[in-house]
Amino acid sequence: MTTTPDASSAPITVLGLGDMGSAIARVFIDRGHPTTVWNRTASKSAPLVEAGASPAETAAEAVAASPLVVLCVLDYEAVDAVLSSVGDAISGRALVNVTSGSPSRARATQQWASEHGAEYLDGGVMGDPPDLGSGQVMLPYSGSRTAFDTHEATLRELGTPTYHGTDAGLASVEFMAQVAVGYELLIGFLHTLRLVHKEGGDVAEFAERVAGSVSDYPALLTAIGEAVRDGEYPPDLGPLSVQSALMGDLVDHRQSLGVDSVRMREVKELMDKRVADGHGDQGFSSLSALLDNQQ
Amino acid sequence: MTTTPDASSAPITVLGLGDMGSAIARVFIDRGHPTTVWNRTASKSAPLVEAGASPAETAAEAVAASPLVVLCVLDYEAVDAVLSSVGDAISGRALVNVTSGSPSRARATQQWASEHGAEYLDGGVMGDPPDLGSGQVMLPYSGSRTAFDTHEATLRELGTPTYHGTDAGLASVEFMAQVAVGYELLIGFLHTLRLVHKEGGDVAEFAERVAGSVSDYPALLTAIGEAVRDGEYPPDLGPLSVQSALMGDLVDHRQSLGVDSVRMREVKELMDKRVADGHGDQGFSSLSALLDNQQ
Repeated sequence: MTTTPDASSAPITVLGLGDMGSAIARVFIDRGHPTTVWNRTASKSAPLVEAGASPAETAAEAVAASPLVVLCVLDYEAVDAVLSSVGDAISGRALVNVTSGSPSRARATQQWASEHGAEYLDGGVMGDPPDLGSGQVMLPYSGSRTAFDTHEATLRELGTPTYHGTDAGLASVEFMAQVAVGYELLIGFLHTLRLVHKEGGDVAEFAERVAGSVSDYPALLTAIGEAVRDGEYPPDLGPLSVQSALMGDLVDHRQSLGVDSVRMREVKELMDKRVADGHGDQGFSSLSALLDNQQ
Repeated sequence: MTTTPDASSAPITVLGLGDMGSAIARVFIDRGHPTTVWNRTASKSAPLVEAGASPAETAAEAVAASPLVVLCVLDYEAVDAVLSSVGDAISGRALVNVTSGSPSRARATQQWASEHGAEYLDGGVMGDPPDLGSGQVMLPYSGSRTAFDTHEATLRELGTPTYHGTDAGLASVEFMAQVAVGYELLIGFLHTLRLVHKEGGDVAEFAERVAGSVSDYPALLTAIGEAVRDGEYPPDLGPLSVQSALMGDLVDHRQSLGVDSVRMREVKELMDKRVADGHGDQGFSSLSALLDNQQ
């Protein structure tokens, strides 16, 4: 039998002490990890040092202190600046970068890490700093499988980690895709609150009823995901021929009130096209077949 | 003490026996109501008559049989045709029309009912025919408060009824607004599945993770509804100044893949404008303040 070292004894370095970086460092300090911190503006480290962290004079010195280095700065300009100051000190370390940014920037940083002898893991924090340390915060990761497997127990202290593949860009894809779905719902919801308000309804009461109906979505989203993957489109919300009849009323109503109808017109056009193409018996998921030709 | 008559002894007439009308009639038959049915094409009534319903030769004869008349036909052209054949036979009855249509058509039918001495209730069925009879199906109603109060117990046999006001158009507003929020989410989700697919991700697995994160929405939707009602915008998803930084990455990423970015661009523009106007400390809900000027 081999023994696994106690996860909370593993030393960790945190580079970048903004709201998120500080919250990350605090979780590790609270769980008993020897934690080394560094920030471009040194004053940010004071409360963490008071809580038990060791301050480092330079990013390179901080990196030298731990096999696991978490980087959390404002953007990729800051990532590049920090890493160029670290240089070869990163060699042999696992670099976990949770700075928000595009997949291509993540891939470029993976390339840099590879050239400097580090295992690179890109991650995203799907939650707010105060919630960090609870299992409810999801953290998608991608890049080095070795780094993920080695440090998974430690990463789990921040929230629930998921691994998305060796391409370092995939965590960013996951993060931006999840965020986008949320914003799609919220902006559509906001426009619809205007409609309710213009019709004399109580927007807060309407919002509460929408909140109550959200429990219908998980099964539907899962079914649509499977339908799109398989390219087979059962009548999820009823056949398109029936769904499309309703959309015309929806568009007319919104336009008559001067309320945004961008998406409802798009949905109606896509439905009408599918029906015209002889797919009126399929479900909403079948609109997916038209999206690639749309842009 | 007065006694309330057993709800399931109340006679009911159902006009229109498409999928939804037939499902409505069947619920009432199953609960023991003396149920009279009529359809323009008489053959549709056969299975219901076999189940215990009484067929009527004409819509006027069907209406004469019950104090409560439920009307469920394809559209308002059919509503008008049926009602003009019924004429004054509707006098003294409660007419509950659950045909889908616009608020203005509902209001016009309310006017017609008033001129013909009937209490009018407009309703919508938020669910599929097979689910009718379960509390999970929501049915918004508006129009005659008297009709709603008198027949609420009977209407509850179809699903969960909510009353939205004496303006008969409000049930349609509720129905179309609820449906719109669902389609906003679903079309945004469908575009985002394309993005995940183009990046090499598994769309079904992504969908399952989105489904899992849906439980975060109810509290957020309720909070945004209250913020919009009150015109006060706390930093719901974090301050706009932070949210807006992410949106640029989102837009760039989607555009680089040729994936729809209509809503993400709109959200970014609205956020940037609020930040420029000095409201960067407010939340997503504050975009609401810009929507009226947008169309």
